[in-house]
Amino acid sequence: MLRLFHCPGSCSLASLIALEEAGASFEKVVVNLVAGEQNTPEFLAVNPKGRVPALATDRGVLTESPAILTFIAQSFPEAGLAPLDDPFSLARMNSFNAFIASSLQPAFGPFGRPQRYSDEVAAHDGLKRKALENVCVHLGLIEHELLDGPWVLGNQFSLADGYLFAFSALIGRLNLDPTQYPGILEHKGRTESRPAVKRALA
Amino acid sequence: MLRLFHCPGSCSLASLIALEEAGASFEKVVVNLVAGEQNTPEFLAVNPKGRVPALATDRGVLTESPAILTFIAQSFPEAGLAPLDDPFSLARMNSFNAFIASSLQPAFGPFGRPQRYSDEVAAHDGLKRKALENVCVHLGLIEHELLDGPWVLGNQFSLADGYLFAFSALIGRLNLDPTQYPGILEHKGRTESRPAVKRALA
Repeated sequence: MLRLFHCPGSCSLASLIALEEAGASFEKVVVNLVAGEQNTPEFLAVNPKGRVPALATDRGVLTESPAILTFIAQSFPEAGLAPLDDPFSLARMNSFNAFIASSLQPAFGPFGRPQRYSDEVAAHDGLKRKALENVCVHLGLIEHELLDGPWVLGNQFSLADGYLFAFSALIGRLNLDPTQYPGILEHKGRTESRPAVKRALA
Repeated sequence: MLRLFHCPGSCSLASLIALEEAGASFEKVVVNLVAGEQNTPEFLAVNPKGRVPALATDRGVLTESPAILTFIAQSFPEAGLAPLDDPFSLARMNSFNAFIASSLQPAFGPFGRPQRYSDEVAAHDGLKRKALENVCVHLGLIEHELLDGPWVLGNQFSLADGYLFAFSALIGRLNLDPTQYPGILEHKGRTESRPAVKRALA
């Protein structure tokens, strides 16, 4: 039985959507990040990095969203969640996921937790301002360069769509100008109408 | 013909090692990051993100190291560069690569380019200090939790090894305490003795 360690409102939503889209049998374990449950000895024994998502499988625990998403797609091939038979198209999905994980999410980091970037409290406002700028640059790249539409890879839904969806709420949460991101917001609406996504959000 | 856009001394070394390990025919195109060549209209037409690595293929350009590495492993299966037939083991490789791309490299970011994180010059020293701390935390996770040895995945060499190698030089460059990272440094020595790695560094 798969067990997904996740926290509502975090990037682990992408893995939750993936399991729902796959029709997988799995157990959800909520890790309350606000309460610091990711740093308990119990959770660090699951994932020494102290982060969600973590997916416990019969063979061990997997971490990092891009790796978990490709693993779910490969474990449930009949669900058609990734272009598994075409290495180039799969690489495009993996590339999009890597951009979210290694550029968009780290750009947001200093906005949410400036204390991880500087011990000087006086520096935190400047860090947050610049973080917002960087988030907009990365969202702009998604809007204008990376999102083919209607789905990330074009006509085929893939697990990159659930991953983008987990971050498109940032536009509202950060009060960004919605007129700058019409493609991402259309994609958000299209994604949240999927039954599996509704189940993940329920 | 594959064309790899790379810069010596950058993380694109991992993709260069991968192509050499694969025995691929490819052309190298050096993008001088110090001279700002990543921001020329010519290069932005290749990769709008303005970054290396970028791998031009007959079907288009791929970006992001983790995606490029898995693509190379899948394109040259006979080279045995990833556990392609075992989704769980492949996910472990992808997870390691995602950790490098989304945790270790971003942790180093404010050390190398603090101006990307704050416009306030007075904040830059504090950013660099904290970045060093964060880099050490992430290298410690690799040393104690993620690197099985002798290779990242245990007995099987994979493209995660070339990716780690591209970052293990940080220990020397940042004057970190080498006694804290014996496993990573042993891995560095083991990796740089491979003929393909020597060719990539030549």
